[in-house]
Amino acid sequence: GTQSSHRLLAYSDALISIIATVMILPVAHTKVEDTEELRESVQLLLTTKIAVYLMTFLIVTVAWAAHIRLFQVIVRIDDCLALLNLACMMLITFLPYTFSLMATFPENVLGILLFCGCVMVIGVIQPVIVVYAFSRPFLLNEQIQVSENQTFYKRHILKVITRVPLTCFIASVFSFVFFQLSYALLAIVIFLPYISQFLKWCRDKMAGPVEESPDSMVFYTYLPNEPLSKERVEAFSDGVYAIVATLLILDICEDNVPDPAVVQKQFGGSLTAALQAYGPEYLAYFGSFVTVGLLWFVHHSLFLHVTKATRLMGLLNTFSLAFVGGLPLAYQLTHEFPQNSRNELEAIQISCVIIFFASVFQLAIWVVALHSQQETLHPHVRYGGQEHVFMLAKLSLYPCVALGTFFLTCVLSKFSAPIFHLMEITVPFAFLVLRLLVRVVLALLRLLFCPDRP
Amino acid sequence: GTQSSHRLLAYSDALISIIATVMILPVAHTKVEDTEELRESVQLLLTTKIAVYLMTFLIVTVAWAAHIRLFQVIVRIDDCLALLNLACMMLITFLPYTFSLMATFPENVLGILLFCGCVMVIGVIQPVIVVYAFSRPFLLNEQIQVSENQTFYKRHILKVITRVPLTCFIASVFSFVFFQLSYALLAIVIFLPYISQFLKWCRDKMAGPVEESPDSMVFYTYLPNEPLSKERVEAFSDGVYAIVATLLILDICEDNVPDPAVVQKQFGGSLTAALQAYGPEYLAYFGSFVTVGLLWFVHHSLFLHVTKATRLMGLLNTFSLAFVGGLPLAYQLTHEFPQNSRNELEAIQISCVIIFFASVFQLAIWVVALHSQQETLHPHVRYGGQEHVFMLAKLSLYPCVALGTFFLTCVLSKFSAPIFHLMEITVPFAFLVLRLLVRVVLALLRLLFCPDRP
Repeated sequence: GTQSSHRLLAYSDALISIIATVMILPVAHTKVEDTEELRESVQLLLTTKIAVYLMTFLIVTVAWAAHIRLFQVIVRIDDCLALLNLACMMLITFLPYTFSLMATFPENVLGILLFCGCVMVIGVIQPVIVVYAFSRPFLLNEQIQVSENQTFYKRHILKVITRVPLTCFIASVFSFVFFQLSYALLAIVIFLPYISQFLKWCRDKMAGPVEESPDSMVFYTYLPNEPLSKERVEAFSDGVYAIVATLLILDICEDNVPDPAVVQKQFGGSLTAALQAYGPEYLAYFGSFVTVGLLWFVHHSLFLHVTKATRLMGLLNTFSLAFVGGLPLAYQLTHEFPQNSRNELEAIQISCVIIFFASVFQLAIWVVALHSQQETLHPHVRYGGQEHVFMLAKLSLYPCVALGTFFLTCVLSKFSAPIFHLMEITVPFAFLVLRLLVRVVLALLRLLFCPDRP
Repeated sequence: GTQSSHRLLAYSDALISIIATVMILPVAHTKVEDTEELRESVQLLLTTKIAVYLMTFLIVTVAWAAHIRLFQVIVRIDDCLALLNLACMMLITFLPYTFSLMATFPENVLGILLFCGCVMVIGVIQPVIVVYAFSRPFLLNEQIQVSENQTFYKRHILKVITRVPLTCFIASVFSFVFFQLSYALLAIVIFLPYISQFLKWCRDKMAGPVEESPDSMVFYTYLPNEPLSKERVEAFSDGVYAIVATLLILDICEDNVPDPAVVQKQFGGSLTAALQAYGPEYLAYFGSFVTVGLLWFVHHSLFLHVTKATRLMGLLNTFSLAFVGGLPLAYQLTHEFPQNSRNELEAIQISCVIIFFASVFQLAIWVVALHSQQETLHPHVRYGGQEHVFMLAKLSLYPCVALGTFFLTCVLSKFSAPIFHLMEITVPFAFLVLRLLVRVVLALLRLLFCPDRP
């Protein structure tokens, strides 16, 4: 009755990526009155709903990273493990609700308690999974299967797994005494892996590096500098990009189908006339879809050439995805205000900021990968490789376009949302001419600096 | 610059599955007044929004099947193909909106024209993809790559691809003259592959089977009895199950966070008291998540043992998924009415019907697979195999539970939604004891009928 875990992991990735992203909807659906200053409203949003979105996104990715680690040890599953994993997923999908409660009632301990409760139940299920899997060694990673030290491994993994629920237990106890401390502890949970890595680094500096035991290779996946499973990073990213692209049409379908009675009364029964009022929405939809699609395209091109994803690359990818998840907000803002109002310009600027950070973190992934290019990149995109310059051009296109547009909005007061969306739609053609452009520039450079070589 | 198409396909699967499923949201969000008869309101819904949902689901799966066929021929991609594919995806995600227009304004031709316009633009992009890929043969399937008849293949594929846009062109022309005919033509588009298969079967019967040319093997993927790519069927199904599971928590997060002012005024500042009012929603959420999760689990178990997915199995899978997509509606209905009202019982009955059909189509997939078990199933689940009975038990659990609950609601007037959701939550334990139960029954049968054998 044992099965390959491949599809279980794909399904978990899909669930987790959707959960991480959908929390942008309450942010995007908040109505901003045109009379209000956009900047003030966004500040108000920032303190609650955007904070909920970002916290959910980060904590869910932490849960996802833990899930990756766990299923790097357990490589085959059976029915019982599949059901236990589904129970974990159910609790993870409930986490966004606890954050909503925390944001709406920051002074009330109930949100913290519910959150800690969920994490602690997950913290009970996961050790059960580990103990169950170690009692049936044929489910485990081959390295552990053949090892003689299984009990030792089991204890180590259980120790790592129980750190987070224990922190949450302490947080829930403190919530009754001094609840600000609980929030601090929850923030620590997100950064715990990095803190423990830092502590280990300090200890090594102080006492000199501890000699690695011959078995430490097996722990590779349980060390902070472990490589993430590249396949699962891709699956998770695909889920986020796909849900962001489709949230847009969902809004269109719910909001932009006119009422038959209104069409009859206001437009004399002409549906075409009624739909013309929605012109900016359609344009915004196509513009946003193109942006999401192309950001996915750049991500796809980048990860084609990545051979191993380090922890830092995973973190940068998470940051990039968190901004990609913000695009529905950008879509919502850009078509909401009358043309040439100050709010419209600020909405475009917010969009530019979101696109800029989403793409600049992608560029950062590449820079980090280049830093240890022997391990992480395919030879032809390494420095000096034939695809190197083209990859750089691809990755820097969106940051440049976003920055350029931002400054355009500062200079040109006539700049408007339709122009912005039209710009978004023309970017794919830039990708198509990019390869040509890079070739021409390279040929020119060669002609200028070494004209003798063929 | 050529790349494996794997991730492009995974991303397309995710996009298409989400688009197919999200159209249930406008259905689920329609408020049903408690004073109305539920049956009447659902009938009203059926004629418009549920029809939109089902039509979207079916047409999107047709587009998805065409996408599978196309990328069985083109197995490697480059940047240009990736961008063209994204353009196709953008148009596919726009289709639900055209259906919304059609449903809201059935007498207006604009919806039909928009739909046909989208399909015709896709019908321009896909031939471009084919021509581009054939001009760079290293992108093609190996069989076609080495063949001498490439031009012939190209023409055949183009002929198959242009059938749907041509039908849509005719439909858009007829929409000005006699628009009912256009709807009939759109319905034909969905069933076109089956119609052509039937015509071919008739021709074979009348004129005797045509001798197959030696090259016809290559066309295997372009014949109506082609096997679908099993991997992509799984990816598509995962997407549908994942989005359905997460639509639930999205509703919870948007609707069930109380307003601080209301909590202060009505509940004297006690958040716990305020949240108690939402008890049924939480129970409904957990019940529905468990149901979706277990339906995925059964699907996962089934496809673990399937070696090849035939077209008919794909069709049954689509029907099953269409009902799975209806589960958010069931969730919405069951917690909306006061306890022990007639509407509540009817809501539970609708849920049972949805769960019954979702699971009975899964069972049908297995029955169809058993029919040609040598080709489609792993040996140990074939008739007489060691897992055969257990698989049957797994697949028939949900139809039995749904039917049983349906009859319980007819007999017991005290049956209520909380009991229903508690039942849903206890089903996983049934799965865990099922294996035990099957063993006991098998042992008993052996004891009764052949007591001599060990």
